Amino acid sequence: MSYGATFPLWREAAGDAWHDYTRHAFVEGLRDGTLPRAAYLRYLVQDYLFLVHFSRAWALAVTKAETLDEMRACAATVHALLNDEMRLHVATCAAEGIPEADLFAAREAPQNIAYTRYVLDAGHSGDFLDLMAALAPCVLGYGEIGTRLASAADRTPYADWIETYAGADYQKTCDEVGALIDGAITRRLGTTPRDSPRWPRLCARFETATRLEVDFWGMGLRG
Amino acid sequence: MSYGATFPLWREAAGDAWHDYTRHAFVEGLRDGTLPRAAYLRYLVQDYLFLVHFSRAWALAVTKAETLDEMRACAATVHALLNDEMRLHVATCAAEGIPEADLFAAREAPQNIAYTRYVLDAGHSGDFLDLMAALAPCVLGYGEIGTRLASAADRTPYADWIETYAGADYQKTCDEVGALIDGAITRRLGTTPRDSPRWPRLCARFETATRLEVDFWGMGLRG
Amino acid sequence: MSYGATFPLWREAAGDAWHDYTRHAFVEGLRDGTLPRAAYLRYLVQDYLFLVHFSRAWALAVTKAETLDEMRACAATVHALLNDEMRLHVATCAAEGIPEADLFAAREAPQNIAYTRYVLDAGHSGDFLDLMAALAPCVLGYGEIGTRLASAADRTPYADWIETYAGADYQKTCDEVGALIDGAITRRLGTTPRDSPRWPRLCARFETATRLEVDFWGMGLRG
Amino acid sequence: MSYGATFPLWREAAGDAWHDYTRHAFVEGLRDGTLPRAAYLRYLVQDYLFLVHFSRAWALAVTKAETLDEMRACAATVHALLNDEMRLHVATCAAEGIPEADLFAAREAPQNIAYTRYVLDAGHSGDFLDLMAALAPCVLGYGEIGTRLASAADRTPYADWIETYAGADYQKTCDEVGALIDGAITRRLGTTPRDSPRWPRLCARFETATRLEVDFWGMGLRG
Repeated sequence: MSYGATFPLWREAAGDAWHDYTRHAFVEGLRDGTLPRAAYLRYLVQDYLFLVHFSRAWALAVTKAETLDEMRACAATVHALLNDEMRLHVATCAAEGIPEADLFAAREAPQNIAYTRYVLDAGHSGDFLDLMAALAPCVLGYGEIGTRLASAADRTPYADWIETYAGADYQKTCDEVGALIDGAITRRLGTTPRDSPRWPRLCARFETATRLEVDFWGMGLRG
Repeated sequence: MSYGATFPLWREAAGDAWHDYTRHAFVEGLRDGTLPRAAYLRYLVQDYLFLVHFSRAWALAVTKAETLDEMRACAATVHALLNDEMRLHVATCAAEGIPEADLFAAREAPQNIAYTRYVLDAGHSGDFLDLMAALAPCVLGYGEIGTRLASAADRTPYADWIETYAGADYQKTCDEVGALIDGAITRRLGTTPRDSPRWPRLCARFETATRLEVDFWGMGLRG
Repeated sequence: MSYGATFPLWREAAGDAWHDYTRHAFVEGLRDGTLPRAAYLRYLVQDYLFLVHFSRAWALAVTKAETLDEMRACAATVHALLNDEMRLHVATCAAEGIPEADLFAAREAPQNIAYTRYVLDAGHSGDFLDLMAALAPCVLGYGEIGTRLASAADRTPYADWIETYAGADYQKTCDEVGALIDGAITRRLGTTPRDSPRWPRLCARFETATRLEVDFWGMGLRG
Repeated sequence: MSYGATFPLWREAAGDAWHDYTRHAFVEGLRDGTLPRAAYLRYLVQDYLFLVHFSRAWALAVTKAETLDEMRACAATVHALLNDEMRLHVATCAAEGIPEADLFAAREAPQNIAYTRYVLDAGHSGDFLDLMAALAPCVLGYGEIGTRLASAADRTPYADWIETYAGADYQKTCDEVGALIDGAITRRLGTTPRDSPRWPRLCARFETATRLEVDFWGMGLRG
């Protein structure tokens, strides 16, 4: 699960926060099936809204890209989020009697607002790299979690969640996003990005977004 | 060619500017085949760059949408621009020995900068409607021009250009964008939008973008 | 404390949230002096960071204004925030041995991120009015709280906080912001803004920002 | 007229464009008094509108700053533009019977749209440095032109224009902006910024903005 050269560096720089995110009790509850259904649904409704704003953030990345490849990669991610990834949420919630219109109209939890708007502001206040550093923990962390859970999961009612993120489609997205980030880094910071004065700030953005992921799981677990 | 209810109103409010744009000498040169090849290629290179920034503006619209339908319609347009519409430009230029990388790296004409950045700023400074009013003249005007030329064209070496914009795919995009705009207007201004204090300003945006289209044709014609 | 015609309407539409914000236990602790010093300092450090991002949001408003008066009013608010309002925070913290550089470098609480980035996104995703509706609860709510506490306060170590917001300078800012909002509303929605389809959404923005204020006090109180 | 360390490097990289801008026939007409009054007034009306959007761009810089010093420097520039620099335009036009409201409502020339919206988009698409590179030619170029003309001017009816930009207030602004840029460069690119992969792109932004200045003078001269 390296997803390129940059992600492992940012992940390591995030220290405990990365562990707190990817080994969160919510995640373990998905793995061993102990996660209460109500917590899962609460999470799923909020995560649907999260994907709406996350799509907006990837669309913002299209406006901040410098190459056609960057533009196309980001536009493809917008498409994947709005059309594919949301499908799990819509289908699962529909099976529980929650129509998509209710998902879209649900009230956002503060932890959701904090995370999504932080990512958007990373883009508006900085450049493409600032945005990528804020987008990476969710995209690539879910890929990492999905892969681990696919091999470590007990019998769990959340197998479809795990399959969504462990599946080939999502893993391909992760590889592409990892490559996108590596290319964007080289293009703007050169081949020794850790020597750039911007490096600590990019690591800090990744870490802050990671901490906001931890809060998001917590919201799912405890409401 | 009404493309919905709003477009005809904006078009009428634009007065002569609309005629100057859609009946420009460049357009007539496409129709009757008298447009010099050099002018066409100059236009095509600039229009490629235009599409890059126009895609960015539609991506910005994704970030400013209020409904999932608006988001999906705008994301689909980004996709159509980046993947389909550019194909004519890339293929034609390739046949002339101009690779896509050269298109992307070409120097933007001032008329190109003026138009594309005006549209982007309409979005950044205003809301979704401001952006739509600035995007509409290009999308829908090309649909109108394409349709007219498809029925009125002489034998012309520019039949592929005409077919691109008269074709069912592009016309479908125009219908969808017209419906998107109508829905966005009703949602924000109600059912009598001309009574809104914002109406004159939206008409002014449409007209300014139309005038910048006229300048763009002029740049193609005269360099 | 009406601060114009629009604010009372938005305040009323916010229902309980307005009461929860302006009568929060943190506020009552300022009034009667029972607020623990540690809570006050925690709040003050976070509020300093809040003002940094709030200044950014008012600067964003300059970029979204439609008239010179709107531009100047917003620019004056940026100036007041960056130079005057921060002075209380800097002086109080300095007296506690916390230099301004430490304030600027402090880690933002999630409640702070949620609130400030929500306001900025209101501006980026919408127009000037969307931004004003998200900015209003803080500016005008503090004016209302300051005025009430100035007349109702017991002996309290927080008299300087109360005086900052009850004082003539801050109250003048509130009057000006109220007038700015009223003018902006009339300009864009006309003289019966409650009939506009946008009205409920503007009320919802105001209410969401108000709820994020409640969370902000809670963060101050409990960490 | 070095205005810091970065400006001379960008100016040199701009090659002929810098000369075309700072030695433009319009400038020489200001110097020797041969500039037709009608051209000057046309320029002044457009330059007023330019300052409106230039203020917006400096306000955008406040939203993209990383330090309090950067924020304050940019906010001070917004203030200087909106309150001081516009005064020359307002006073001169008032003496010609053109009230400020007419200036604000004038139709923007395409060259004006191109330049101002290019600068704003530099900020939106990039980071603080991209914005600075696009803002620099106007601010610092006018300082350079003003200084040269103050020592080289013949008797000219445009002495007040020259004095505005040669004067101590404006020159102080130039020194501060130069220092702001130097600090921003070091903070983000380190002490050898020319080794950064971003350097050529920043130079290109500066050069493009410089070319748009040339077009702006041309618009003043020829309409």
